[in-house]
Amino acid sequence: MIQLSLIGIGTGNPEHVTLAAVRALNDAELILLPRKGEGKSDLVDLRRLLCRDLLEASSRTRVVEFDLPQRDGRADYLGAVDDWHEAIAGVWAELMATHLPEGGRVGMLIWGDPSLYDSSLRIAGRLREAGQALEIRVEPGITSLQVLTAEHRIPLNALAEPVQITTGRRLRERGWPDDAASVAVMLDSGGAFASLPPEGLYIWWGAYLGMDKQCLIDGWLEEVAASIIEQRAALRERHGWIMDVYLLRRM
Amino acid sequence: MIQLSLIGIGTGNPEHVTLAAVRALNDAELILLPRKGEGKSDLVDLRRLLCRDLLEASSRTRVVEFDLPQRDGRADYLGAVDDWHEAIAGVWAELMATHLPEGGRVGMLIWGDPSLYDSSLRIAGRLREAGQALEIRVEPGITSLQVLTAEHRIPLNALAEPVQITTGRRLRERGWPDDAASVAVMLDSGGAFASLPPEGLYIWWGAYLGMDKQCLIDGWLEEVAASIIEQRAALRERHGWIMDVYLLRRM
Repeated sequence: MIQLSLIGIGTGNPEHVTLAAVRALNDAELILLPRKGEGKSDLVDLRRLLCRDLLEASSRTRVVEFDLPQRDGRADYLGAVDDWHEAIAGVWAELMATHLPEGGRVGMLIWGDPSLYDSSLRIAGRLREAGQALEIRVEPGITSLQVLTAEHRIPLNALAEPVQITTGRRLRERGWPDDAASVAVMLDSGGAFASLPPEGLYIWWGAYLGMDKQCLIDGWLEEVAASIIEQRAALRERHGWIMDVYLLRRM
Repeated sequence: MIQLSLIGIGTGNPEHVTLAAVRALNDAELILLPRKGEGKSDLVDLRRLLCRDLLEASSRTRVVEFDLPQRDGRADYLGAVDDWHEAIAGVWAELMATHLPEGGRVGMLIWGDPSLYDSSLRIAGRLREAGQALEIRVEPGITSLQVLTAEHRIPLNALAEPVQITTGRRLRERGWPDDAASVAVMLDSGGAFASLPPEGLYIWWGAYLGMDKQCLIDGWLEEVAASIIEQRAALRERHGWIMDVYLLRRM
């Protein structure tokens, strides 16, 4: 039996881990740490840093790094994701069989929170369906949306009003959702907000949230859209990668 | 100048506080701890427990408890909330003037995360508009929705799909939002899900999330709606108060 802990670690500020996450890290016998290719080495670095700083000297946790399979870029998005998850599940199974042949406690450090636009729970579900004896535990972590609102010092929702959390892809395809005063956008490959009629929309944008290179911009969409797009391109160029999220509100 | 830190503390599991929250608590000179009336003394107890366990011996933080004004129950909901926030802002201002007449660092322990269906940011904004020199900081915390999904071991969103976060009141008034595959409901005074046509809806429900008395139910809405309503009434009777949230998904 494998006990797999998916441990939310926040988005770049090492102090955003919870006491429960620290405990889960130290309780694991094996931590699997994915390498995501050269461009995103900062993201691996944070995980390495957390392991180094938070694993107690008495802990017998082994940290094993592995190369995450790449998703192919074909147009059939859901099909590509499905194949990709299958490939990752295969790699996890192999690593667990190699390093914990008798079973035991495995931890994985999940960017943000394992519940929000993260696939680890689905991949773990595949392993279970494939016959792996697997007990899953989840430690919630601070998401980029929470750091966005904290750093801008704003609530996510307007008073007593709903919030839609969606993706850049979806915002481009469907426009502003009918029933929401506020829309939080994640996984945007860049500038989906520019597809909206900007009148009356305010945007709070943030990149590299929680990290030293964090960048924040806010303002009326028609006034700041162009400079966000420009800034985003410049930052991506400078750092080799970018992750950004934003909140839009009709005001 | 007052530096006010709104510190998210999670929803009942003392290990859900972040390292940043622990630091912010210890950095504060004054912590204001609201008492919310007899019924909800558990919620005050958690805050007291966190102060006792997390304030270091060397810390010079003073903890001051105060009675939170009550919201009147009149039908004009937004009007009642407005008056209530004004009353709370007045109490905060008085406490700060009394205990930190020269200014300084004040901390408040916020249930969940200060950004999600919490009014502290709005109340602090009122103080600033009234002329108080106030610098606001926010420490994000784990929300009840995150504990709900962690304990049920489910993602918040269906793959690449949006999620609507809304209130029980709104769900009753407007029904299922058009553009969402998943709907998370907070602040429900009880059973708003029963106003929906249940076909094809799955519900994950949780009460007292993160606490020892946590209770979880999940299933197809038509099969479990009645037992959730019954269980909720019984738990409320037994404990004198209840806080619950749930996630609905069209499947």
